[in-house]
Order: sequence, then C-alpha cells, then structure tokens
Amino acid sequence: MSDDTVKYTLPESAIPTSWVNLLPDLPGDPVPPLNPATMEPAGPPDLTPIFPMGLIEQEVSPEPEVEIPEEVREAYKLWRPTPLYRARRLERELDTPARIYYKYEGVSPAGSHKPNSAVAQAYANKEAGTRGLVTETGAGQWGSALALACQMFGLECLVYMVGASYDQKPYRRSMMEAWGATVHRSPSDTTEAGRSQAEHPTGSLGIAISEAVEVAAQDESTNYALGSVLNHVCLHQTVIGQEAIAQLELAGDQPDVVVGCVGGGSNFSGIAFPYVRDVLRGKAKTRFVAAEPAACPTLTRGAYRYDFGDTVGTTPLLPMYTLGHDFVPPPMHAGGLRYHGDSPMLCGLVKNGLVEARAYRQNDIFEAAVRFARTEAIVPAPEPAHAIRAVIEEADAAKQAGEERVILFNLCGHGHFDMSAYDAYFAGKLEDPEFSEDDMEAALERLPEAPAIA
Amino acid sequence: MSDDTVKYTLPESAIPTSWVNLLPDLPGDPVPPLNPATMEPAGPPDLTPIFPMGLIEQEVSPEPEVEIPEEVREAYKLWRPTPLYRARRLERELDTPARIYYKYEGVSPAGSHKPNSAVAQAYANKEAGTRGLVTETGAGQWGSALALACQMFGLECLVYMVGASYDQKPYRRSMMEAWGATVHRSPSDTTEAGRSQAEHPTGSLGIAISEAVEVAAQDESTNYALGSVLNHVCLHQTVIGQEAIAQLELAGDQPDVVVGCVGGGSNFSGIAFPYVRDVLRGKAKTRFVAAEPAACPTLTRGAYRYDFGDTVGTTPLLPMYTLGHDFVPPPMHAGGLRYHGDSPMLCGLVKNGLVEARAYRQNDIFEAAVRFARTEAIVPAPEPAHAIRAVIEEADAAKQAGEERVILFNLCGHGHFDMSAYDAYFAGKLEDPEFSEDDMEAALERLPEAPAIA
Repeated sequence: MSDDTVKYTLPESAIPTSWVNLLPDLPGDPVPPLNPATMEPAGPPDLTPIFPMGLIEQEVSPEPEVEIPEEVREAYKLWRPTPLYRARRLERELDTPARIYYKYEGVSPAGSHKPNSAVAQAYANKEAGTRGLVTETGAGQWGSALALACQMFGLECLVYMVGASYDQKPYRRSMMEAWGATVHRSPSDTTEAGRSQAEHPTGSLGIAISEAVEVAAQDESTNYALGSVLNHVCLHQTVIGQEAIAQLELAGDQPDVVVGCVGGGSNFSGIAFPYVRDVLRGKAKTRFVAAEPAACPTLTRGAYRYDFGDTVGTTPLLPMYTLGHDFVPPPMHAGGLRYHGDSPMLCGLVKNGLVEARAYRQNDIFEAAVRFARTEAIVPAPEPAHAIRAVIEEADAAKQAGEERVILFNLCGHGHFDMSAYDAYFAGKLEDPEFSEDDMEAALERLPEAPAIA
Repeated sequence: MSDDTVKYTLPESAIPTSWVNLLPDLPGDPVPPLNPATMEPAGPPDLTPIFPMGLIEQEVSPEPEVEIPEEVREAYKLWRPTPLYRARRLERELDTPARIYYKYEGVSPAGSHKPNSAVAQAYANKEAGTRGLVTETGAGQWGSALALACQMFGLECLVYMVGASYDQKPYRRSMMEAWGATVHRSPSDTTEAGRSQAEHPTGSLGIAISEAVEVAAQDESTNYALGSVLNHVCLHQTVIGQEAIAQLELAGDQPDVVVGCVGGGSNFSGIAFPYVRDVLRGKAKTRFVAAEPAACPTLTRGAYRYDFGDTVGTTPLLPMYTLGHDFVPPPMHAGGLRYHGDSPMLCGLVKNGLVEARAYRQNDIFEAAVRFARTEAIVPAPEPAHAIRAVIEEADAAKQAGEERVILFNLCGHGHFDMSAYDAYFAGKLEDPEFSEDDMEAALERLPEAPAIA
C-alpha cells in the first residue's frame, strides 16, 4: 500500500466567498422563462408571490460572481469545506491509469449537497420576513436539507414528499421531523393539485411541486423553495466546484473530465459550472458527462421545448429538455432523479454540445455502487451511483487508450437511507423499468403551446 | 452571528503515529483476567485460540505508546483525522458560559468510532494469516465497522447481531452485507451457545459474544474480534483523544471535563485515556464523566467483581463492574450500550474515583438528542445521546456557578440507522425500562466463584 494522500481537506477560511453565476458567460442570448398565462417572458414580478426578492435577484443576476452572505458562510462551516478524495483503491480495482477524484458532499448533516442551497434559501427568506417555507422532496434529500436550514434560521417548514419515496424511505421523514418539519405524503388531500392527481398514488416530483407551489401562492407569509432546476439553486451549489478546484490544485492535477448525476441538475451544476466557465472562457478543455437514469432519461431522450416545471401547470414555462410535465416516472430507488425536466442552464449546455448526457439502468448503477463501497468504503446513494457508473466507463476508456486521464466526480450523498434498495439489488428484485417511446410521444402531444426556444 | 471558527480540522499528517496505552500508568498492580477453568491468571496462551499474537501483545503491552502500523494509518486516512466542533449553537441555546467541544466520529464510512479498532484488528489478523473473523454486534455499529475492515484487508466476516437490534435496525444488516459480510440473528441455531439461549429471543451482547467465540474457537482459520471492553480495543480508540488534544490546542482551550457514553467502554476510553494519563502523571486536573443507560447501569449499580465476558461463560473472567454475565438487558434503542460489564481498565478508574459514572433514562437522552440535532444539526445516535445529556448537565452547572468551563465530549456516531427510535420518541412510545434490584441480587448469586479483585 502506498503512502499517497487520499484526502484533500481545506480550512474553514477556504469556504468560497462568492457563488459562480454561469448565466453571463453562457453563449447566445439568455432564454427567459415564460408566463404561463401570457406566454410572454416572465420577469421578477411573476415570481414574487412565491420567492423573496433576494433569491429572484440571484435567479436573474448578470454578475459573474454573487457574494455569499456572511450568515450563510457561517452555516456552511458546519460541514464545509467538504473533503476531496483520491479514489486510489477504486483505481487499483479497475487497474486503470486514470486518476479518479471525488468530492464528497455526504458529510453534511443531511447527508447530501442539498443544504448548500437550503441554507442560502432559508437565509434569504428570513431576511425578507417570511414565516415559513413549503417544498417538495423526492428521496427526501432536499426535504431534510430544507428542514435543517429552516431550523437553523427559525422558519417553519412543510414538505410534500413523493409517495413512492415516502413509502420506501420512512427514515428520511423521521429525520425531517427530528429537525422540526411537517411532512405530507404526495399526492395528498391537502391541496387541489394533490386531489387532482389521486390516480397517481406513487406520486412524482412534478405533482409534489404543484402541491407546494399551491400552498405558497395562497399564503402570503409562506414562500416556496425549490431544491434544483432554477438558476439560483445551481448558483448556490457552485461552492462544490470552487472547493474542488482549490483541492485539485493541492493534488497538482486538472480534470480531463468532470462527471455528475442529473435529476434537476443541482449537484451536477455545483461541481461542473466553475469548470464550464473556464471552458467557455477558453481557459480549459475539460469534458463533462451528465449521468441520468434510463427510466427517466430527460437529457438523452427528452424534447428540447418550453414546458411547465410542475405537473399541474402553474409554474412559469422553462426552456429545457422535458419528458412532458405530466410524465410520471416509474418508482425507482434514485428518487432524487425522478423529474421530467432539468435545469435550463444545464439543458442549454447539453444542447450546445458542451455537456454529454448518458442514461443508465438501475441494476447497472447498483453494481457500480457496490464496487465503489467495497473499495472506497463509502456506501453511495443511488443518485451518485449513476455518476460512479459513468466514472468506471471513463476509467476503462483511459485504460484502453493507455492514458493517464484525470476524472473528477461529485459523490453528492451517502446511501444510509437507501439500504432497502441495496437489499432489493442483492436479492435480485430490483426492477429496470423501461422508458416507453409511446409514453414520450403522448407526453409531447400534451406539451403546452409555446414558442420554440430561440 | 459571530465569525468564530466552529470546526477544527487537521491534515492527514496529524493522524497519530502511536496509540496511547494506559496500562503502565494505572495505579496499583495490574489486575489480570482469570482462566475460567483454573481461576489462575490468564496469559497470552489462553487467548491464542481466538486472537492473533499481534493483538495479544497489544492487550498486555507494558509500553506507554504502541506504534500504529503504516497499513492501519493508511486505512485511517479514509476518514481521519475527524473534525472537532465547537458547539456554539448549543451553547447559545443553553445560555451557558461553558465552551462545549465535540469530537465527531460519525464521519467514518460506518458512521461511528468503531472502525478505529476494526481496521487495526483486521490488519493484525491478516498479518497472522487468518482467513476470516467472527464477531457479535449490538446496534450494528461494530459489526458494520468490522465488515468494512475485513473488506479492506481481504478477510471473510461473520457477524452475530443481537436479536432486538436485528429487528429494529434492518439497514445496519444491509450495510454489513454491502461490505460483503454474512449476518446471523442472535440467538441463532448455528451454535450451541445460541441454541441454549433460545428463551431470550431479544438476545444480548453477552449471548452474541458466546456464539461468536464458539465459532472462532472451533475453526482454526477463523479468529474472534471484539469491538469493546478489552485493553487492545481501548488502545486503538485513543487516536480520538490524541487528535482532540491537538485540535483543542488550535482552539487554545483545555478541557475541564471530558464526557463519553459507556457500553463496553471503547469510545469513552478513546476520548478520555490520553487525558487520563495526563491526570495520572500530575499534569492536569481534568474531570471525567461516563454516561450509561439506566436500563443497563453497569458502572452505577453493578458489583465490582470477576465475571465472564459472555453469557454462556466461556471467556476468561474479567475484573469489572458487572450486572451478572447472564443479565439480559431490556430491549432499548441504544443497542451498543446493552452489555452486562465494562472495560476492566475503565472500571478500575471508576473504582479509584478518577471517573464519575451517571445513568440516564431513554426518554431523557432522546430529549437531549433532539435538542442537539436542532442546534448542532447532526442527528446523534442514541448511544452518544447519553453523553449529550451529561454535557447539558455540565453546561447548566457551569451556568449556575458562573464559570467559563470547557467541556469536551465524544459524539461517537450519527443516528441515521436509529430513526425508528426517534419515531418512537416523538410518538411518546419510547419505554423507560426499569432496572430491577431483585434481578441484580439474583444475578450476583449466579456470579462465578472467583477470588475478589485485588
């Protein structure tokens, strides 16, 4: 066994002081969201009923750097900077000349990268005088992160949890309750949106968003919080990539390829956007790989169209790859990736060929996850297991090419609340739900009438 | 909010190079274990059927420092050094002048301090040519740590898991399996010891130990591994306290009191022994508080006698506080603390008045745990929640005295696999089993005939 360093840590003083805003660097004119009633570009006034102005300003900011409030950096200190690992044991197992690094966001109290945005959103709402936040959650990672953040900043917290995950992962709910949140199974009978979707008892992120937005829109003292997709969420997550840059400098390496899983795009944006900016500015030639589930293959099989962010159709229309806002993905264990759309910024990068998307089946990603756990010790959540699968492909490709490539990926969370999925995998009972081309065609016919994306 | 540092991190180079062996510093002559057949002092030959010589040498070492093998330090790098936190949010909540610090061992891949000893034991066995290890586990923390360590060093791993925890915490079992271990519910029908205890279906650590020792004794290629109690296990855990000393130096503080929970004594020893040595050498005046469950109050209610380490009575007799080797503690959620005895070294310190023991009820420790989670964000395991309860008492005492006392405790693990206990607590369904004085008297009558402890 060699004596190489495996873990690159940074002091608290190295927590970034600003977030990286990719918006001004993106090629072409900005593509605005549309008001669902008028189909005209939606601006800040369309968002004020459910978001505080502080976050709306971040959503549309033209500044390449957005300062992180001191109170948010103070909250980050509880778990940031997160470690960067060199995956030497996995490299040996793969017998690859590649050097594999991973940023580990599972050290946060909620066990994933989600608190990076949750504390920023809770702080902005507290500053705006908001009494409580309402949100949706898939696997429970975002919900538990927001429950924690609300507890830290003295806000009430109400969470609509996707039915399939609520049933599979009861302990994520317990965790949200330990942090003082109230949790409803979605679709619920507490909202009009929920009651209208009773025929989809397993739920979906789109349905849960409709429920949460409805509650926030009807209660002036309550705002909505989204854990992914929107620009300001991707913005908040860029602390991940900024720290990774500093840590890879310590290691004396530069990534040839950056890999992340994608559900709505938040963890992928977090690790990748600081590097994407360097590529857009001609300073680097990094490749980017976005890994998604074959059962919900938004980036690889979706249409690049304006679509609603939620199922019922109350949010602004977003320019993105979509499987149709009323697509209900089959129950699967990477609950955080069951979303019909993706971050418009990320979708634009895929459309422009800057980011390559790949889709993987559930059994294949658990095979990769177990391989990782048995070498690197950390048991990964099913979501980043998609990234691990792509990393193994990249490492094998480096071996075939005989090249010392540097691979960086985001291990966005641990699998402590996903062990029932590992059980199912070991028992050979994990299904690989098929994405149906017919479903896709039908969904596209139900897309809202909207202009093509410029 | 202030800008104070909350987290003290150390570089990998600060991982200790030796373990602290308290044995030569203990007051009085060493008190040896006894051979159960002869009642004569047990020496290394009594232990060779189930332990490798490398660990036996550590068990009886007269050296105050024992060098950590390079391969073990290399394994430690996956999670060590662990962070030391200043609990500023908890301090504010308690409105105390005390400064509270906690060492957080939950960052290990298994989620507790247990891998500190597991990798040391797996390495020593691998060096000795052992094929596989067999062990017992309560809440599953030790079992998952050993499963991980065996995976890292290429050993087979068989775990007897206490029935009550096996039923309450199925996901700890899944984790052990993810790392390649085989797990049996104890009492099982795979051993004579297990079959003899079928009338105690909830099991106990003592019964599970009997099963594991039986398997190890009968198979020459298989050894036994214990996660607590023995000298070499306490030795391995002293990396915790050594790192804490370095981190508190960074903070410019010295602890007035060091607090840990006690089941068999491993995490308490880990944080405390390096400080205890300073006290024994006249270099410090630190106080020590050991927190245990009222339902299994070994240190506060037990008898200081020679007793078996296991239920069936096959291990050497150990000099310790005991509730009787056949005491089966009631099912409770701090499964890691359900043991009838405690580390002989720790018991000696309690007997000598160097360590103060306190017992707490289950509902009180969960109240403390939730208070901690809602301020410090980390959801603690039920075991260290006992320590948190004692810390809150100490912080309140500092407030009453108007003194700026410094409190250090070991947060030995997170509660991600214990959320069903939080559920029960919130639902008001958590029982507070009574320790019965009658049971104690009956158990004492069944203690083995042995000399009094010198």
